[in-house]
Amino acid sequence: MPHAGQLGHVTPQRMAFPQPLRLRSGAELRDYEMVYETYGTLNAERNNAVLVCHALNASHHVAGTYAGQDKSEGWWDNLIGPGKPLDTDKFFVIGINNLGSCFGSTGPMHINPATGKVYGADFPVVTVQDWVDAQARVLDALGVQQLAAVLGGSLGGMQALDWSLRYPERMRHCIAIATAPALSAQNIAFNEVARRAIITDPDFHGGHFYEHGVVPKRGLRVARMIGHITYLSDDAMEQKFGRELRAAELGYSTQDIEFQIESYLRHQGDKFSDYFDANTYLLITRALDYFDPAREHGGNLSRAFASARCKYLLASFTTDWRFSPARSREIVKALLDNKRDVSYAEIDAPHGHDAFLLEDPRYHGVLRAYFQRIAGELQ
Amino acid sequence: MPHAGQLGHVTPQRMAFPQPLRLRSGAELRDYEMVYETYGTLNAERNNAVLVCHALNASHHVAGTYAGQDKSEGWWDNLIGPGKPLDTDKFFVIGINNLGSCFGSTGPMHINPATGKVYGADFPVVTVQDWVDAQARVLDALGVQQLAAVLGGSLGGMQALDWSLRYPERMRHCIAIATAPALSAQNIAFNEVARRAIITDPDFHGGHFYEHGVVPKRGLRVARMIGHITYLSDDAMEQKFGRELRAAELGYSTQDIEFQIESYLRHQGDKFSDYFDANTYLLITRALDYFDPAREHGGNLSRAFASARCKYLLASFTTDWRFSPARSREIVKALLDNKRDVSYAEIDAPHGHDAFLLEDPRYHGVLRAYFQRIAGELQ
Repeated sequence: MPHAGQLGHVTPQRMAFPQPLRLRSGAELRDYEMVYETYGTLNAERNNAVLVCHALNASHHVAGTYAGQDKSEGWWDNLIGPGKPLDTDKFFVIGINNLGSCFGSTGPMHINPATGKVYGADFPVVTVQDWVDAQARVLDALGVQQLAAVLGGSLGGMQALDWSLRYPERMRHCIAIATAPALSAQNIAFNEVARRAIITDPDFHGGHFYEHGVVPKRGLRVARMIGHITYLSDDAMEQKFGRELRAAELGYSTQDIEFQIESYLRHQGDKFSDYFDANTYLLITRALDYFDPAREHGGNLSRAFASARCKYLLASFTTDWRFSPARSREIVKALLDNKRDVSYAEIDAPHGHDAFLLEDPRYHGVLRAYFQRIAGELQ
Repeated sequence: MPHAGQLGHVTPQRMAFPQPLRLRSGAELRDYEMVYETYGTLNAERNNAVLVCHALNASHHVAGTYAGQDKSEGWWDNLIGPGKPLDTDKFFVIGINNLGSCFGSTGPMHINPATGKVYGADFPVVTVQDWVDAQARVLDALGVQQLAAVLGGSLGGMQALDWSLRYPERMRHCIAIATAPALSAQNIAFNEVARRAIITDPDFHGGHFYEHGVVPKRGLRVARMIGHITYLSDDAMEQKFGRELRAAELGYSTQDIEFQIESYLRHQGDKFSDYFDANTYLLITRALDYFDPAREHGGNLSRAFASARCKYLLASFTTDWRFSPARSREIVKALLDNKRDVSYAEIDAPHGHDAFLLEDPRYHGVLRAYFQRIAGELQ
């Protein structure tokens, strides 16, 4: 029996799509599969479904645990469960693994039906729009025509925004946290350095490393270290590590670890390179780069949001320098220009971009209240 | 004949030091050489010398040009010359290449007299203090007992600060620009990622790549790309590149260049990897990490500055997120706690950390006025 407030054991499910998916690039993805999880129960009116979109390093495993696996909590387990802010006693929550991921849905590690060989670098470039289209097909198959809400943070927030622009009739609320209407030059720059670290790793073999029996771990480590710096705030890093040394005295070495922050970053890089796929990393960072709903409207974000119909909750964190509050405010302004119903919370939290994944009472309070409002509309 | 305001052709000079230099690490450097340049004339009173300390990617070649070499202006040529803010008609300006550099003074590419082989990774770890001690010996040989000023930006500013704390009687003014009393955890983190990119490049060979006839260019490129992101402000990058595409349409590729910012970063990385030494990069970033005058005083910066005697000018730039104005203010506070004479200018410039190298009228105005004050004291 699960504890009160806990979902207990959950099980991923798999859905095959024989009909090809047309991608933004013009390519078609044939015979693909999508992996997903659901928590709670779809009500008789079929109007209590909430789709949770994931960011770079996450998956369909949003909440609950896997039987027999310690520490297998889903990545947003602090938010989702019975009695939690996104209450699975009231909502039917759906997590879907995005195409190109290395966590189950069809991706670079799978067989390309056209060649009979592993896709590798030949996996087509996917965009936020492609992900959303693929998610919509999963919802069709689940019999969910209209979502109570689409929820996401960071890159997940971009998916939630795209849902609201291209499937306006299929959702009533869009909840986009710690996100941006498009990457800045600096954001793209960090992605590009990470990609170059991976692509120039001799073990990358142009993205076909699987057949060489190697993994470009050096590049993945560097990519993850760069990522981690941008996820944490300067202050949070200072609080947590400062200039603390690993040993009592300086070792005077350029290669050994001197400072605790170095130890932390190396550990994060090592862990990541053990499980994350290099081609997936390239695809996901590119999807981030490309997201730019204003682009098709001459750079005018307000015009891009003219198709918006649902209600919105935007939230940002004061110390997030990856997607700063100013970026969320751009979205709020575009929505107000279109006279949309938008709530906005700027949360004073010290943890930088990572804050969207953490349990902060003010943050969770905002989400709890907003989901209670949505639940009230279900009556 | 040089143009008015231009130094014209300058010539680097070399000085050999047979007596060993004791380093902070406990190691000794034997039979080393220092390369330096001077501009202007040392006056009869020998009191008009200004030492300019260099940062990561610079050298003794601070101003002027080399005969027969186009575009060979020194790295601070916009500041230093006849009639310029640091006026070589009044001051005798000295630029010294730091130990461990790849631009002339003894470094990892030179022969280790103890083994007869190239130092490579065996070159001893050098600190800001070691550089300052080596500079002091050059000044001894030049017959300069007391400097009118020591000037430096960024890592050069750290050297100027260290001079003022450990050689208080040998200088009258310390001018430290866009610097910090010690790196933050985030600063160290960026250095560490750059170092890991270099060290894990298979062509690094543990730092002994010279004997393999290769250069760890992949690592150097990534290191330089990371550096460039931290030198520019978010806003400056946005102004200069934004989301501008290289081609008219998206190419849907993870490996090809899509955005102009990618093209810029790759170009900077390629250029750097053609001329900069990987071991030097490791040494210099480590010297940055280690600098921390408060450390020997229980973390108390005010106590560290108790030995200060000279007058100070500190300057910072509003958009510098590598060494933000707050870091300069920490130094100003420590000086005021010691009742030192300190001027501080916080300059509203858009260029981020790079601003200290650029010609900004307000910035150069501050330096011009300060050097005029010093020149007045020479009468």
